Amino acid sequence: MSTIDTLSVNAIRVLSADAIQKANSGHPGLPLGCAPTAYELWMNHMNHNPADPKWANRDRFILSGGHGSMLLYSLLHLFGYGDLSKEDLMNFRQLGSKTAGHPEYGHTVGVEATTGPLGAGMGMAVGMAIAEAHLAEVFNKENYPVVDHYTFVLGGDGCMMEGISSEAFSLAGTLGLGKLIVLYDSNQISIEGSTDIAFTENVQERMQAFGFQTLTVEDGNDLTAIGNAIEEAKADLSRPSFIMIKTQIGYGCPAKQGKASAHGEPLGVENVAELRKFLEWPCEEPFEVPKEVYENFSRAGEEKAEAEAEWKAMFAGYCEEYPEMEALWNQYFDGKEAVKKALWEDESFWAQTEKPEATRSLSGKVINRLKDLMPNLMGGSADLAPSNKTYMNGEGDFSKENRAGRNMHFGVRELAMTAIGNGMMLHGGLQSYVATFFVFSDYTKPMARLSALMKTPLTFVFTHDSIGVGEDGPTHEPIEQLAMFRAMPNFHVFRPCDAVETASAWYSAVTSETTPTALVLTRQNLTPMAGSSREALKGAYVLDDCEGTPELILMASGSEVELAVKAKEVLSAEGKKVRVVSMPCMDLFEEQSEEYKESILPKAVRKRVAIEALSDFGWGRYVGLDGAYVTMNGFGASGPAKQLFEHFGFTVENVVETARKLG
Amino acid sequence: MSTIDTLSVNAIRVLSADAIQKANSGHPGLPLGCAPTAYELWMNHMNHNPADPKWANRDRFILSGGHGSMLLYSLLHLFGYGDLSKEDLMNFRQLGSKTAGHPEYGHTVGVEATTGPLGAGMGMAVGMAIAEAHLAEVFNKENYPVVDHYTFVLGGDGCMMEGISSEAFSLAGTLGLGKLIVLYDSNQISIEGSTDIAFTENVQERMQAFGFQTLTVEDGNDLTAIGNAIEEAKADLSRPSFIMIKTQIGYGCPAKQGKASAHGEPLGVENVAELRKFLEWPCEEPFEVPKEVYENFSRAGEEKAEAEAEWKAMFAGYCEEYPEMEALWNQYFDGKEAVKKALWEDESFWAQTEKPEATRSLSGKVINRLKDLMPNLMGGSADLAPSNKTYMNGEGDFSKENRAGRNMHFGVRELAMTAIGNGMMLHGGLQSYVATFFVFSDYTKPMARLSALMKTPLTFVFTHDSIGVGEDGPTHEPIEQLAMFRAMPNFHVFRPCDAVETASAWYSAVTSETTPTALVLTRQNLTPMAGSSREALKGAYVLDDCEGTPELILMASGSEVELAVKAKEVLSAEGKKVRVVSMPCMDLFEEQSEEYKESILPKAVRKRVAIEALSDFGWGRYVGLDGAYVTMNGFGASGPAKQLFEHFGFTVENVVETARKLG
Repeated sequence: MSTIDTLSVNAIRVLSADAIQKANSGHPGLPLGCAPTAYELWMNHMNHNPADPKWANRDRFILSGGHGSMLLYSLLHLFGYGDLSKEDLMNFRQLGSKTAGHPEYGHTVGVEATTGPLGAGMGMAVGMAIAEAHLAEVFNKENYPVVDHYTFVLGGDGCMMEGISSEAFSLAGTLGLGKLIVLYDSNQISIEGSTDIAFTENVQERMQAFGFQTLTVEDGNDLTAIGNAIEEAKADLSRPSFIMIKTQIGYGCPAKQGKASAHGEPLGVENVAELRKFLEWPCEEPFEVPKEVYENFSRAGEEKAEAEAEWKAMFAGYCEEYPEMEALWNQYFDGKEAVKKALWEDESFWAQTEKPEATRSLSGKVINRLKDLMPNLMGGSADLAPSNKTYMNGEGDFSKENRAGRNMHFGVRELAMTAIGNGMMLHGGLQSYVATFFVFSDYTKPMARLSALMKTPLTFVFTHDSIGVGEDGPTHEPIEQLAMFRAMPNFHVFRPCDAVETASAWYSAVTSETTPTALVLTRQNLTPMAGSSREALKGAYVLDDCEGTPELILMASGSEVELAVKAKEVLSAEGKKVRVVSMPCMDLFEEQSEEYKESILPKAVRKRVAIEALSDFGWGRYVGLDGAYVTMNGFGASGPAKQLFEHFGFTVENVVETARKLG
Repeated sequence: MSTIDTLSVNAIRVLSADAIQKANSGHPGLPLGCAPTAYELWMNHMNHNPADPKWANRDRFILSGGHGSMLLYSLLHLFGYGDLSKEDLMNFRQLGSKTAGHPEYGHTVGVEATTGPLGAGMGMAVGMAIAEAHLAEVFNKENYPVVDHYTFVLGGDGCMMEGISSEAFSLAGTLGLGKLIVLYDSNQISIEGSTDIAFTENVQERMQAFGFQTLTVEDGNDLTAIGNAIEEAKADLSRPSFIMIKTQIGYGCPAKQGKASAHGEPLGVENVAELRKFLEWPCEEPFEVPKEVYENFSRAGEEKAEAEAEWKAMFAGYCEEYPEMEALWNQYFDGKEAVKKALWEDESFWAQTEKPEATRSLSGKVINRLKDLMPNLMGGSADLAPSNKTYMNGEGDFSKENRAGRNMHFGVRELAMTAIGNGMMLHGGLQSYVATFFVFSDYTKPMARLSALMKTPLTFVFTHDSIGVGEDGPTHEPIEQLAMFRAMPNFHVFRPCDAVETASAWYSAVTSETTPTALVLTRQNLTPMAGSSREALKGAYVLDDCEGTPELILMASGSEVELAVKAKEVLSAEGKKVRVVSMPCMDLFEEQSEEYKESILPKAVRKRVAIEALSDFGWGRYVGLDGAYVTMNGFGASGPAKQLFEHFGFTVENVVETARKLG
């Protein structure tokens, strides 16, 4: 290990320890243990350009163990990414700083994905590797490998314990994602103590069972061994690689290294001094780094910039030789506005149907329309495509043999599916969707939250959206899931009532720039509504109105809109002035102006009934203290759907009766 | 295979096919493929007594692939469990029948766990095996193995793809749960087609990596091979066993066997006729079963009853020789009332603290008080015990070497942890708790829902309950999680404001008979509230009141109660009549009488402010159309907690200002 390499590795360590100490908060264990791995990778094996962090063909790096954020921030600072300054490091974990507690995508230049919830990065890396493989197949031409990069992900014992990593890696092995390289920081320590208390499995054997090449680095401080393993991993393009790197958590801090106490709290002023001594660090001043270290990183950065320059030259030639491919490239990477315009102007897209149809089926038709307009649409289901109606006909299945396929078979792995969908979106170039039964959206929740937090506009297709599931019973009947997603910031949940609203939901989803969207769709047929319109894009609108000021408002979504309309007929016949508000997307309605909201739900009208075959939770904002609910108050039951709707009070009679009781 | 065995196996197949056909709904694939496995297991290797389904020492059996419910119902019917009649089978999947679409615990006699969400059964089985191992250590004496049974679980490819099974089995291997036996129905078929499209891993090697003995049955119709494998599995007590049984989905139905179409829809009338022909089934009439088949099962049932009789005799001797153990047994299996009484009467349990303290720390003290009163309390954290404060001092760690330990180290596996907690509770004899950061409750959601659905009063300890998390930032700051759990039926979420309310929350949790409870606790210190009381058990109560009728109500929970009280002081000084309502458990408040609710929140009082450092979603029910919110509207940020509270408006000034704006 040369002097400059040693100094550079230790710069990462000391900067990390200093920042955590100054913040009096953070996780020094990972940065100290993994500094050599990260340095060797970023310096000698990864294609990236600090001057152009968004270079399309860069190698991707995800720090799955997001608590070790200072490892990443130190690297980004030393390489000069986004002008991440010494002051930024000094403001680690402070309000408004660029250096948040965990890496945040979109917040700090050079951060490829938000991590923190363990295992998430593993799933997103698989998604990025899938995107790379698919885009390479679509775009590469002889002598023009315009998409040709690796995806690296670094995580620890926690990431490997989380089920999501097994889900994601089992699929990665099946798909033979040869350019996915997983770096496993094996330090044998967890928060509660030695990993032996809960984790004695043979991780390498598990990964082999999944179809990975497995490699081992016995000494996590040995740059040569790390480099050799990375090169060996890169060389095997037939299967993903897994490099177990044996490290010591908190390496360099004599009082804490190898102990759980090194994980999640500052080392302490004295221990930071001891770290300097142990590493023979030449600078006493916190955050001080020898000039030659900066020179080392900036020299490397310049060399790396050349790689991009070469790629750009190649890409220019490619565009010249294949102008149609350039156009396609732009369609993939920057085509959202065109899609938006085309869909908006296409009357047939918004057309009402004549016969009753399930919204899942209508959604399936939309997908098979979108697939032509959006060649970069790629997605699938967690083994429920025939039920979710998510299959793109004629577009093939993405597999080890067919990288051109656009239909994903995620297997019964909802959580990894969602992380993979996020990864595909984060990669750039693709619009992805994922699907399962609405009740199993529960499994997707941790990663759906990351979609919202990262502002990744992934689309979720959730079918079988209520007790309309019928015979499968309460384990398969969503109740609280709609509230769960409505309560989540920056997430749109659409529950359309017919073809027009289903088109609106898809339009909203695929044109969204920063908000993920879930479509919540029926298993059973729904009657087309005469009053439905693309006003649905405002979240709620008047679908059926009385003359003059209403005295009663019936609010509903999805399958219950028809109930509201029919109840209105009965009540109108009795002389009541009734308005029906369709509310397919509560979240979007909340984003409207106060004026618009007042125009739909005038505050003076206090008689209000919410009708929805799911939990009433969250409707109170519109029902107020004087309204009423026709909703589900417990779990469902097993039986034919029609009987269930009757049994649980979703009848015109009950809605009418509930409204009458309001006076 | 003897004639009677063949007939009996086929009885399971034909009854299943008939019931599914009659319901015109259901999943024939699994029952047809797994009938021999289930028959051989229940007939010749499992200790159970149809006449006493709750026998404490019975072997446990969980059908993790819950969609194959007719397999279980057919067995239960043939063995005569709970008088499950032929008519009950005929009413499969009908509203109100005993034979719901998926097996439901507490609904059908003989069903040990509710299954349907794939992988769930795998996790619960691990929990049951842990319970068995612990209780055996606690209770068994020389010559008196009063707790000594196996736990069997049967699942398919879907269960193995779900991440929860990797989480649970990795822990099961670490813990060396020798009496856990997993039966893997390997039929190579998933809903979207061959498992090869998404699942080519070597499952046996994965299980070996986890530390399981692995066995293979090449022909799923070979009862002898199945029986031998089960006996081999039973014989190895040092590690759990995994038996891969190669089956054909839908076996016996020539048109569908081995195909995805066999999985989830009725075979069709003609195919059921073909099945009868293929199996040489002697009866034409649907649901008709030869007399000798019933005799075969009932003879077996009688023999099995003898095993319980022997156990009862042994248990009687045990009680005579160790009367103190009998008392302990009763304390474990039937001690809830005594706990309830003791806690209620113990004034020190309800005592207020003098100094500010975090509710997680107060909870830790309660746990260490409860552990003596409740020797059957057993639980732990997903590798966050030092932060969650869930460690029971002096009670040891449950491990391969120490079955007496009461502290569980679940590893970083929140989902499996929750399923395991459910399994420990379902087993009987234990009161279990699980713990993680509140934001990671997302990972627990699918199995927390099963707790609620099964009415299993598991306790969840969720700490770090808001932006009070501070520097770790938005990936670690819960926002919508409180709404997520409040929206779930039969689930109590407590967010206490001090020691008295924390005691109330734990009291409610451990005395609950049918409802799981989550405790949502702060990282940061909270000031003891003068007005707090065990009225908290009603979910909401007046913590600080004005004289006469209030004109303004401030509603808050947890860390925000102090804000409400201080804002009240300011507003009172201005002459406003203000009431402060502490609402630690919205769910329990909803369960109170209308009179009680009106007494706390009089409908006439329209000026209301909800104050809670989490999503406002769900508060509308109490805020109404005229109130206001001091809540979180987006994700949090990384920074010192105090700064975050100020930044996001959680200050006395802002609460006062918000209230003033109401007029």
